[in-house]
Amino acid sequence: MTVLRIIAGSANPELAATIANYLGAGPPETVLDRFPDGELLPTVENVGGSDVYVVQPTPPPVNDHLAELLLLLDACQRARAARITAVVPYLGYARQDRRTHPGQALGVAVFTRAIAAAGAHRLIVIDPHTPALEAICPIPTETLTAVPVLAQEIALSERVVVAPDEGAVKLAEQYAQVSPNPLAVVRKRRESGTTVTALELIGDVRGALPVIVDDMISTGATIETAVGLLRVHDAAPDVTVAATHGVFAHGAVGRLHRLGLRHVLITDTIAHRSLPPEFQVCSIAPLLAEAIAAMHDNAALHPPVSTVWSIS
Amino acid sequence: MTVLRIIAGSANPELAATIANYLGAGPPETVLDRFPDGELLPTVENVGGSDVYVVQPTPPPVNDHLAELLLLLDACQRARAARITAVVPYLGYARQDRRTHPGQALGVAVFTRAIAAAGAHRLIVIDPHTPALEAICPIPTETLTAVPVLAQEIALSERVVVAPDEGAVKLAEQYAQVSPNPLAVVRKRRESGTTVTALELIGDVRGALPVIVDDMISTGATIETAVGLLRVHDAAPDVTVAATHGVFAHGAVGRLHRLGLRHVLITDTIAHRSLPPEFQVCSIAPLLAEAIAAMHDNAALHPPVSTVWSIS
Amino acid sequence: MTVLRIIAGSANPELAATIANYLGAGPPETVLDRFPDGELLPTVENVGGSDVYVVQPTPPPVNDHLAELLLLLDACQRARAARITAVVPYLGYARQDRRTHPGQALGVAVFTRAIAAAGAHRLIVIDPHTPALEAICPIPTETLTAVPVLAQEIALSERVVVAPDEGAVKLAEQYAQVSPNPLAVVRKRRESGTTVTALELIGDVRGALPVIVDDMISTGATIETAVGLLRVHDAAPDVTVAATHGVFAHGAVGRLHRLGLRHVLITDTIAHRSLPPEFQVCSIAPLLAEAIAAMHDNAALHPPVSTVWSIS
Amino acid sequence: MTVLRIIAGSANPELAATIANYLGAGPPETVLDRFPDGELLPTVENVGGSDVYVVQPTPPPVNDHLAELLLLLDACQRARAARITAVVPYLGYARQDRRTHPGQALGVAVFTRAIAAAGAHRLIVIDPHTPALEAICPIPTETLTAVPVLAQEIALSERVVVAPDEGAVKLAEQYAQVSPNPLAVVRKRRESGTTVTALELIGDVRGALPVIVDDMISTGATIETAVGLLRVHDAAPDVTVAATHGVFAHGAVGRLHRLGLRHVLITDTIAHRSLPPEFQVCSIAPLLAEAIAAMHDNAALHPPVSTVWSIS
Amino acid sequence: MTVLRIIAGSANPELAATIANYLGAGPPETVLDRFPDGELLPTVENVGGSDVYVVQPTPPPVNDHLAELLLLLDACQRARAARITAVVPYLGYARQDRRTHPGQALGVAVFTRAIAAAGAHRLIVIDPHTPALEAICPIPTETLTAVPVLAQEIALSERVVVAPDEGAVKLAEQYAQVSPNPLAVVRKRRESGTTVTALELIGDVRGALPVIVDDMISTGATIETAVGLLRVHDAAPDVTVAATHGVFAHGAVGRLHRLGLRHVLITDTIAHRSLPPEFQVCSIAPLLAEAIAAMHDNAALHPPVSTVWSIS
Amino acid sequence: MTVLRIIAGSANPELAATIANYLGAGPPETVLDRFPDGELLPTVENVGGSDVYVVQPTPPPVNDHLAELLLLLDACQRARAARITAVVPYLGYARQDRRTHPGQALGVAVFTRAIAAAGAHRLIVIDPHTPALEAICPIPTETLTAVPVLAQEIALSERVVVAPDEGAVKLAEQYAQVSPNPLAVVRKRRESGTTVTALELIGDVRGALPVIVDDMISTGATIETAVGLLRVHDAAPDVTVAATHGVFAHGAVGRLHRLGLRHVLITDTIAHRSLPPEFQVCSIAPLLAEAIAAMHDNAALHPPVSTVWSIS
Repeated sequence: MTVLRIIAGSANPELAATIANYLGAGPPETVLDRFPDGELLPTVENVGGSDVYVVQPTPPPVNDHLAELLLLLDACQRARAARITAVVPYLGYARQDRRTHPGQALGVAVFTRAIAAAGAHRLIVIDPHTPALEAICPIPTETLTAVPVLAQEIALSERVVVAPDEGAVKLAEQYAQVSPNPLAVVRKRRESGTTVTALELIGDVRGALPVIVDDMISTGATIETAVGLLRVHDAAPDVTVAATHGVFAHGAVGRLHRLGLRHVLITDTIAHRSLPPEFQVCSIAPLLAEAIAAMHDNAALHPPVSTVWSIS
Repeated sequence: MTVLRIIAGSANPELAATIANYLGAGPPETVLDRFPDGELLPTVENVGGSDVYVVQPTPPPVNDHLAELLLLLDACQRARAARITAVVPYLGYARQDRRTHPGQALGVAVFTRAIAAAGAHRLIVIDPHTPALEAICPIPTETLTAVPVLAQEIALSERVVVAPDEGAVKLAEQYAQVSPNPLAVVRKRRESGTTVTALELIGDVRGALPVIVDDMISTGATIETAVGLLRVHDAAPDVTVAATHGVFAHGAVGRLHRLGLRHVLITDTIAHRSLPPEFQVCSIAPLLAEAIAAMHDNAALHPPVSTVWSIS
Repeated sequence: MTVLRIIAGSANPELAATIANYLGAGPPETVLDRFPDGELLPTVENVGGSDVYVVQPTPPPVNDHLAELLLLLDACQRARAARITAVVPYLGYARQDRRTHPGQALGVAVFTRAIAAAGAHRLIVIDPHTPALEAICPIPTETLTAVPVLAQEIALSERVVVAPDEGAVKLAEQYAQVSPNPLAVVRKRRESGTTVTALELIGDVRGALPVIVDDMISTGATIETAVGLLRVHDAAPDVTVAATHGVFAHGAVGRLHRLGLRHVLITDTIAHRSLPPEFQVCSIAPLLAEAIAAMHDNAALHPPVSTVWSIS
Repeated sequence: MTVLRIIAGSANPELAATIANYLGAGPPETVLDRFPDGELLPTVENVGGSDVYVVQPTPPPVNDHLAELLLLLDACQRARAARITAVVPYLGYARQDRRTHPGQALGVAVFTRAIAAAGAHRLIVIDPHTPALEAICPIPTETLTAVPVLAQEIALSERVVVAPDEGAVKLAEQYAQVSPNPLAVVRKRRESGTTVTALELIGDVRGALPVIVDDMISTGATIETAVGLLRVHDAAPDVTVAATHGVFAHGAVGRLHRLGLRHVLITDTIAHRSLPPEFQVCSIAPLLAEAIAAMHDNAALHPPVSTVWSIS
Repeated sequence: MTVLRIIAGSANPELAATIANYLGAGPPETVLDRFPDGELLPTVENVGGSDVYVVQPTPPPVNDHLAELLLLLDACQRARAARITAVVPYLGYARQDRRTHPGQALGVAVFTRAIAAAGAHRLIVIDPHTPALEAICPIPTETLTAVPVLAQEIALSERVVVAPDEGAVKLAEQYAQVSPNPLAVVRKRRESGTTVTALELIGDVRGALPVIVDDMISTGATIETAVGLLRVHDAAPDVTVAATHGVFAHGAVGRLHRLGLRHVLITDTIAHRSLPPEFQVCSIAPLLAEAIAAMHDNAALHPPVSTVWSIS
Repeated sequence: MTVLRIIAGSANPELAATIANYLGAGPPETVLDRFPDGELLPTVENVGGSDVYVVQPTPPPVNDHLAELLLLLDACQRARAARITAVVPYLGYARQDRRTHPGQALGVAVFTRAIAAAGAHRLIVIDPHTPALEAICPIPTETLTAVPVLAQEIALSERVVVAPDEGAVKLAEQYAQVSPNPLAVVRKRRESGTTVTALELIGDVRGALPVIVDDMISTGATIETAVGLLRVHDAAPDVTVAATHGVFAHGAVGRLHRLGLRHVLITDTIAHRSLPPEFQVCSIAPLLAEAIAAMHDNAALHPPVSTVWSIS
């Protein structure tokens, strides 16, 4: 069969290296030239005839990381890779899957189409913000979940799982079905791009140890609101937060740190440096390595357990 | 400007006629030949140079209605319509937006791509089961909601809104934000295609008048489970159910009737005949007529109010 | 090389099993879920990296069989089949290859494009109604013929070959060139979808033993008309009928049985049960198995002998 | 509405001028530069925002005429024509709609796809050799027929219509249904690219005045064979020939002239000069002008009367 | 006809406003939301049914400007613009039109394809770095030149035109043919991304007043090298520089200022603030306004005078 | 791995045979049927499952050679080749990469898109006239150069390299950097399709031995002009000409012969017969054979050394 090759973009070369190490695939050699005016020129090596996996999440600066991803895919195609899989553990623009006002764009449609057009045959994503990513992306897509990885680091059996907004309910159910656990949901209304108003907390949290779960943490405002509401409802003060993607925009780490949380669990879909001591980074490199190995061997990949339809 | 034409498929010609009437567009002339072996041959008239709206929801028999829709679109294209909009108030296969086991297909991707390939330039859908339909469909898509139409028929101010499963939470929030109202959520686990196990009801319903809301009612099993759980939690016995699409498969109407509900509200996205007296059909023809008029005039269409992203 | 896999749709699983048996490919494991509202959800297994042949003819209910075929192809693509061939021994909608009135659709264009869009790389069809299927289908297509299979069951040397309408002349010539045989042609005019008026029979049939040949038998009306005309022209009463596809809509079997024919030969492109004793089903499984084996081995497939152009 | 513009390729500028004249559209200004090495560079004028009809049949030299057509379409697209229709009265490569040996190409698929890719939105063709051209061409296609134009020049009521091979039977039926007339069919087998062996003539021609009809005359060999067979079967010596396209390759005109035919009717889909006196050219300019006027006005175009499906 | 609308991206809103003012098109209303994590969300208004021109050059930060452009185009398409033209006066990544080492990408192919896929029907660019942009871009493209605008600000008749590298020879010829003027060419070899070695100056510059011309100035290194070589060859010390695009990366303005040039002419394809006094910005707003007016009126646009092929 | 197969079109079967011989690939069996009316029907053999290289340059008659190439590619695709590479050493229409007047077409875009649509996965071209061919062609393209092959036949160290027009400057620089050499450039203005006016020669040629280099020689007019100008500037009379493609239209060979040149070097991208004694044909068969071997082995291909961007 063809040789497996890991190509590392500049967004998270450590993750790519760890995956390559798991797979015994040799360190990914990355050359990324940047012209003085900011244009990128990546060069790939030894991809001819190979089964290539381009590892490039798209955290901030998201547009640079997306542009680099498109160029890497084009480079692989022109260098005659046999099969090209875009491995984008964190996919930006995934909340733009519907218009909320007339005149808006759908970022996730724009960029998944660009990924397909640039030469990718397959896409792998972890816990995308939009639940229908598989159907949105024009190329076959595998959706993985970090929930089992994070759940085993939480003493889940003692905790109530809290969805910090309606969008997180399905993810919270994934966590809650492990033990199983009770569930609570924060109802909120977004007033603007950065202002969030909590309305209500449904479900019983009095005296319980809460774990707030979400797919990603951007500014931390949603978590902050949920923590406040938990206090109002007399939950236990020992609060854990678990999220797959630590995007951490605009001083989010400090904001979370000041909340006095017991534990903030995230993964390494996005590279992190120097976090406060209560932050713990769980690696999803084994998860991705296994998925890549299965794809290279043409074996089936099982979708996340809780990805069930609701049929009414 | 070009003339507006309504074309009626065989799935709901009454709805098409009502819309045409609202728009003063003349009755849609429909000819659908069926060959003895079941092949369909629709013929469209006077669409040359027109701005055409093909009204064809896809309730059961879903595959026949989808095939007819594709043929109607192809016929319009070959007859040189200036612009073709597929108006599919109820879109089947919309739960197939992700795989839950390896080896499955994504029906909503398959059929929205076929709709685009058959010649549609635009798609209009009401309350699709998948929240990301706009991003899934390869052609620009307008998503409308029947929530305001149904909500004004419910004395919402006195009621707790119940989401009968996690998939209905966002829709329930749309209803609940009208007054605003309290919310309750049924947690369930689907054991198989037709067996549903309710786990828990979160939110306080004791003594409250509940309204169970969902996008569609298929077998009625989800509603039946929710009603049972409401009784266990001592909700008031006067239960209202509201759903956009009354798909009503396999004796669902009888099943719902036996539940002794106060009120079952649905719309005419799907044509209904001879329902029990507690069933009320609210017409979405004005909603669609307005949307079509706006599109014909190139005016903006406002997305449903509650279609907000959750940003964590 | 990659492994050969046969996938059976629900339209003719016996044929798929027979083909798999010929090829030593293991029985095709088929799971087809049907939701209560009629939506289909097929699941394929072990297709990753394989050279997959999806066997699904599209007899009535044609739209259900087409929808299932599209979903099976999509499922194979997402499950990472290396190459996907749609094996559609009987392809419905193949007469819709031209418009006969303004405002019609071209079903064969619509559905072959959908087959290609759903993920098929190749199509195999037997005796399609349209002679130009290869050029119509956007993916490379192999057209096979059942004429030699059927011809060897007829004592052709003693018979005049009768084309029951102009559309069957080229097929009749294929049969007639075996011995070679004399040929007669029924001229007819179709008044409507189900009414046929015979005009004339050209060619000499007096006292001859006729064999009426066609690609498919739908209602049997065309055959009935031809038989009547043969009697008017004093052909021998011992009439044989041969057709590749026994579609048999609307009591066609009874209609043919009442004609007192000597022999009705069809193939198993479509599954049949409990036919009258004069009906004989010839299997095209060996023909398909050979074609699939050749395609799997990348060997050339020879087109039907009589597929010659007329150059004037 | 937009302005109608006729663009004339170099294959038949007289036809384009006649059409433009009928439509009052002003003479088509054609500039075609030829580089010394044979590359073509057409320049179009005043097509911006217009409804453009590019008139270019593709008789010999077929490849030059096809290349010019593709360049004209590309030029119109870049010059911002509002709508572009390729008017190709005679479409070459139309017999290549199926493979007769492994390893062949399908010319009609290759070139209709190229026509679509070059920017045409619509195609108009007269009596194409392949009956399924509409379904083959990726863009909506209108098929016209010259049969009524030619039929009115023949004293049809007295004649037997002769199809000179099986491929011409459907066309012959179109002629024969005018009066209606008796029909005869030449059965032949093509031994090689240029050798034709007649096998048999079916239908009664003794003493009758024959008219041999075909879609096109290339070398005249098919006609010559048919004439010989008519003489063997004692038809009247006064033979008329009617064909839509006078391709007349390799001394075909002389060959036909030597047959002593009474009348050879062709049309001006292809430009002709200095034909023998028994040759008569009937203009299809009015037919095309009417079709173009209808398309420009978005009116329906009726397909040829005899384009009926055979349903067995 | 449809209404003309100017949409301003954030890269150069002043230019868009000036163009809108010329055209009497009303000020372009621009709303660009930026999420805290850097994702962009532009909202367009009143584009339904309009002929829309999205003005967005892509200077640094190039990837942000490209992403915004793609989102603006998608937004216009979904808001049902009748026609969408991307007006990208300065197009980044245009030097990536060929690979110089194996394993590279072709940025200009990647991003023009993404522009087309996002919904643009047309592209307008000024003096693109690649001479074949029209043929590269999958949508029809109009290439304009700022040479006449800049040339009229230079006392060209007294000057020798200097191409600072081989890539600028054709542009230099455009300037030189105005008077006409003598020409000189710097031969150089690029050692790395930022190091340039001048080899030779061909053409006679002794005592002449030079004007160095180029399509864009990035770091200024090419200009610096040319100036040095001019001094070695005893050109007059009064040097003028003219370039269409002032990209000015990494302190380029200071570098140029220190060269003691008489005059640096650039245009406003890219927005500039606070340049040294010898810098002069010539507006190409009239050029773009005229081109947009012509396109809106479907009039022909004349390509730059010197865009002639070399035919050997 | 798959088997390598060379397929020879009719444009240069000797070159294909030589390449096949180098690669030990067996003689390419070519069958090209020509119908009497000029339509082509190529038949390919044994390409099923192979890695196929179709060798077909497109010298005059360019449209016939292009049509044959498209048909060969389609034939390979239908015959189930595993991978298809179009090897077009000389690609016609490559100067049409921009419009020089409104209303023109872009031949290189039209025909590279047709090559891709006909089934090619890859394109190989030698010294294409347009420098951006890789970015223009929708499929990955490898550009090779014959400069090293030709340069080693010239005693370059003693010569000044002359670009006979601005379009040849970059190619001239490729030659000049071998020793390195001095460079001179002819400035010219093309008055019409065939008339060329030389303006000036820049660079010092007095007494030097010149070598005029270009990518192709069409009529020889450009060379003739350059030779005249060299004489005016007192270059040595011993002039060598080197060009990759000897297109030699319209008596170009005689025209060049009458110039009394010392040496005319061309390659066998185009087949030549009976040239005057000063003409020397250098074979690029080894270059192509090496490139094909590398592609078959999925090894990297190095682009021409001098393909560097100019970054200003």
